[in-house]
Amino acid sequence: MYRLTASYRHPADPEAFLRHYRTVHDPLTRSMPGLDAFEWGICETPDGSTPPYFVVAVLTFADREAAFGSLGSEAGQRGAADMANFAMAGVEVTQWEAQTS
Amino acid sequence: MYRLTASYRHPADPEAFLRHYRTVHDPLTRSMPGLDAFEWGICETPDGSTPPYFVVAVLTFADREAAFGSLGSEAGQRGAADMANFAMAGVEVTQWEAQTS
Repeated sequence: MYRLTASYRHPADPEAFLRHYRTVHDPLTRSMPGLDAFEWGICETPDGSTPPYFVVAVLTFADREAAFGSLGSEAGQRGAADMANFAMAGVEVTQWEAQTS
Repeated sequence: MYRLTASYRHPADPEAFLRHYRTVHDPLTRSMPGLDAFEWGICETPDGSTPPYFVVAVLTFADREAAFGSLGSEAGQRGAADMANFAMAGVEVTQWEAQTS
């Protein structure tokens, strides 16, 4: 199982970020070929302080080959390009082969 | 489903980090009550450049209540304290209710 996470810094306009994320980036991501699962959430902290990121998303693929193929597909390229429309505050992407045992 | 991620900055001694992580922190984390799933991986990039983090781990709980109860348990507290033994380079923790639909 291969995972990719995208951790988004706090945007200047959180409502505009979420509106774009829900209506454009979420469906665009879900249209990527070979994507086994997609989830995301708005970060919180136990004490109510500001978390390091605003939103974290996790994409799941069968393996590295499936992930790279998906990211290189037309939908994958459109998703990457779309980040310029809402992730101006910054985003950190990680990718890794998940070790579950 | 409630997720917690721990993203570790690149350590001064990667081998020592991984040795401690595999032999101490991994089993300690897995001993946490109410933990539905635990996985982690060593980050990589498509072009071989240095990724923003060295290791990312994802903990999965049924819901926020289960997560907070687990983090507050003896094993949870020991796991948090253990970070001082290998995560000196820094770690960013996020937690969020996963939206999958």
